[in-house]
Amino acid sequence: MNRDQALKLVKQQITEQRYQHTLGVEESAIWLAEKYGADKKQAQLAAIFHDYAKFRPKEEMKSIIISEGMPQDLLVYNMELWHAPVGAYLVETEAGIKDSEVLNAIRYHTSGRENMTLLEKIIYLADYIEPGRNFPGVDEVRKTASEQLDQAVLEAMRNTILFLMKRGQSIYPDSFKAYNHLIMNKEESA
Amino acid sequence: MNRDQALKLVKQQITEQRYQHTLGVEESAIWLAEKYGADKKQAQLAAIFHDYAKFRPKEEMKSIIISEGMPQDLLVYNMELWHAPVGAYLVETEAGIKDSEVLNAIRYHTSGRENMTLLEKIIYLADYIEPGRNFPGVDEVRKTASEQLDQAVLEAMRNTILFLMKRGQSIYPDSFKAYNHLIMNKEESA
Repeated sequence: MNRDQALKLVKQQITEQRYQHTLGVEESAIWLAEKYGADKKQAQLAAIFHDYAKFRPKEEMKSIIISEGMPQDLLVYNMELWHAPVGAYLVETEAGIKDSEVLNAIRYHTSGRENMTLLEKIIYLADYIEPGRNFPGVDEVRKTASEQLDQAVLEAMRNTILFLMKRGQSIYPDSFKAYNHLIMNKEESA
Repeated sequence: MNRDQALKLVKQQITEQRYQHTLGVEESAIWLAEKYGADKKQAQLAAIFHDYAKFRPKEEMKSIIISEGMPQDLLVYNMELWHAPVGAYLVETEAGIKDSEVLNAIRYHTSGRENMTLLEKIIYLADYIEPGRNFPGVDEVRKTASEQLDQAVLEAMRNTILFLMKRGQSIYPDSFKAYNHLIMNKEESA
């Protein structure tokens, strides 16, 4: 699938604001892929489709999580997580993307997970630092992203967990596992 | 075992400063037990013995964690966690305390865990708010502790996780599970 076809499919699914965000994620994902030696086409495709399911009705997402045997604990955690695994499923079944690395980058772009692949890290981070993002701490993470991928993913993950905890929200276990994994990997390689 | 016997055993194991902390935990634990309807004797015994293993050599603690089949992931997380499960073991084998509720309150006093018992919550919280503690946020938790036990445990757990994350430390999974459990329990009962 070429870029125009992908963008056309996505544009029908999301708001104009979210479409602009998607273009930002695409830009950042390509930049990170070039910098850290990932496949640019995969990064671009995953970025374009990462929020494909963002505006699906709650009941549809819930029903897909159940019928497709996704981790059922998703249902007791924040709904904001659902569009990522549901998106991976819909991007495969509706848009016909079969590349499992691309699909996993979409699947884990919100929670992260233990032992993330290079492509998963790139999409997670691109979603956090894309040029349209403007929240406390994002500039520091952008700076780190230009130097150390793992450290930047760790900072983004930590900021996100801290933000959610300060708001009294639960934290999906995959995010904690990702955080601990990145911390321990850093200690080992230090 | 009466109070004097317990204190005598503990005094031999820890520093004078830690002994004063222990007396503070005892005071807070009894206060919480009275307030929330736990057994005062159990709370007192668990409080007196909670830091029994605090000054054991690292190698001895490590060897006990291995030989006694404790969760082996303890070894890859912060050493500060070790004295709690090792303490439960030594308090049983050296001091002859057989009450499994008391031993569990010692075992989980540093990490917490999912689905904590009333006694476990009391010892965890008493360790955090005892009169000798003096760090940012402790007065707020003391105030909450006088009104809502679960909310106070949640605040102490959250503050501890935030503190460790800001310092770039890994978080033992039981602590995250405790946090999520308390948050979700709160949502259900709200």
